[in-house]
Amino acid sequence: MRVQAEGYHTDLQAALEHLLKSGGKRIRPTLTLLVGRMLGAAESQLITLAASIELLHTATLVHDDLIDGALLRRGIPTLNARWSPGATVLTGDFLFARAAKLAAETNSIPVMRLFAETLTIIVNGEISQMFGQPCQTALDHYYRRIYAKTASLFEASTGCAAMISTADDALIARLRHFGRELGMAFQIVDDILDLTGEEAQLGKPIGNDLRQGIVTLPVINYLHTYPEDPLSQVLLQGKCLQNEADILGLIERIRQSPAIEEAHQEAERFIKNALDDLYTLPESPERQYLEELTWFVTRRRT
Amino acid sequence: MRVQAEGYHTDLQAALEHLLKSGGKRIRPTLTLLVGRMLGAAESQLITLAASIELLHTATLVHDDLIDGALLRRGIPTLNARWSPGATVLTGDFLFARAAKLAAETNSIPVMRLFAETLTIIVNGEISQMFGQPCQTALDHYYRRIYAKTASLFEASTGCAAMISTADDALIARLRHFGRELGMAFQIVDDILDLTGEEAQLGKPIGNDLRQGIVTLPVINYLHTYPEDPLSQVLLQGKCLQNEADILGLIERIRQSPAIEEAHQEAERFIKNALDDLYTLPESPERQYLEELTWFVTRRRT
Repeated sequence: MRVQAEGYHTDLQAALEHLLKSGGKRIRPTLTLLVGRMLGAAESQLITLAASIELLHTATLVHDDLIDGALLRRGIPTLNARWSPGATVLTGDFLFARAAKLAAETNSIPVMRLFAETLTIIVNGEISQMFGQPCQTALDHYYRRIYAKTASLFEASTGCAAMISTADDALIARLRHFGRELGMAFQIVDDILDLTGEEAQLGKPIGNDLRQGIVTLPVINYLHTYPEDPLSQVLLQGKCLQNEADILGLIERIRQSPAIEEAHQEAERFIKNALDDLYTLPESPERQYLEELTWFVTRRRT
Repeated sequence: MRVQAEGYHTDLQAALEHLLKSGGKRIRPTLTLLVGRMLGAAESQLITLAASIELLHTATLVHDDLIDGALLRRGIPTLNARWSPGATVLTGDFLFARAAKLAAETNSIPVMRLFAETLTIIVNGEISQMFGQPCQTALDHYYRRIYAKTASLFEASTGCAAMISTADDALIARLRHFGRELGMAFQIVDDILDLTGEEAQLGKPIGNDLRQGIVTLPVINYLHTYPEDPLSQVLLQGKCLQNEADILGLIERIRQSPAIEEAHQEAERFIKNALDDLYTLPESPERQYLEELTWFVTRRRT
């Protein structure tokens, strides 16, 4: 019995340590802690909530990597690359279960509701991506996708923190909006880096999105400016690029076009909206940190 | 856009309809409804809860089939047999998310806590099974496994229903115990049927458990009575049976031994405990239905 318990712990711990080691910026729990402290939430409840948010995020990444068949994340092999699909599914489910348990331990019904709603939005987004047509070039489709994929959990990170403080409904709504806009900017910058970053820094091959049939903002900008480009034509006709040479060719042209800079400007517009929300709050050290974190999002290079 | 939305709905609906069509006895939500009505819970809250329980159950089945690589459940191809692993993972996650959302809509913190705890127990059980040694023959290991796999959700089905009624802590504990004992009996009968049932009725090949390295109660009973049998020896030495002939051979000997009847008697002991809980409650039509349901569990043949 003891051997089995130990074996179990060793193997699962190996999986979890692997996930912990793979790093990440922990930006979501940081947002939760800063917003909660700024609004005077109870510290222990806040820490439970922040852990719940980060575990939910990690759970979605684990299943995501399995779905995409991704072998690297943050430059480190995914669970998926080293474990059976079954073990990967279960590790994700384990993290979901722990996240739900921690969310319940906040003893806040609004938190639990937003937690469940956010999970629904994230999973629906993934289902749309899997069952929907690939290589869609509509801007509203892009924004809906990155809201589901990223901004919804940023919104939950800030919104849940406000919900366990004494904030009233209007203030909760403002902080949800702050998180949402920050999340949109975060994902746009991520999408830019997928095209402009160095593989060594990204920890994954460049142009991954396009290769997976995902058309991101810089690509959409390029299509609007150069619709006559034969590669633009392929995408605008609702088809995907057929080979690696075309993908790398289009990326090269995008990098040399204003499309990248336009995407940066769009991210800055979201950042401005987020800061407008923040500036309605009284000055405090936490507000200052949140402002710095917000600027950091648009300036990061990995 | 509309095409994509439609495409999405059609495909996901196909998956969900497939799951709905595949039937099942809906015993868990029935327990929830009967216990809740017996204790005067609000009907709309109860229906939300019952749906949440059934969706959680279905979600675990979907991921389970992926993990086991099962191609048939209830005689119908699993999602896993017809869809990619990614689509199966996402369908399970979608059902988890919906279940969590419905649990949150009960507006009951104890319900949400028990929901999250139960999910944790179920997933931990699956992890133990995957990472632990196969073909374990200890009785306490067997009971822990079937509690995690089945009885924990039966306990939640009855316990959560009590939690949204006016039941006090003692009564809630008694109804959780009722569900737990009923769930243990249910799984023992399931495990007997895996050895004695007809393939056509089971909807899957006979002896599936043993083939997957799972030693169930009838097998454990046989090992205790016939430890000198060479096939018993293999299992008692901590090894698995090596080939199909040995598996079918052992099953045949178990079927002709008292091991099956002993397992039935053990299920009846759990049923008796469950009924003892039930009989502490005043008579009512719901109590009567629950009693009939409890007897049905030990008498079913599929």
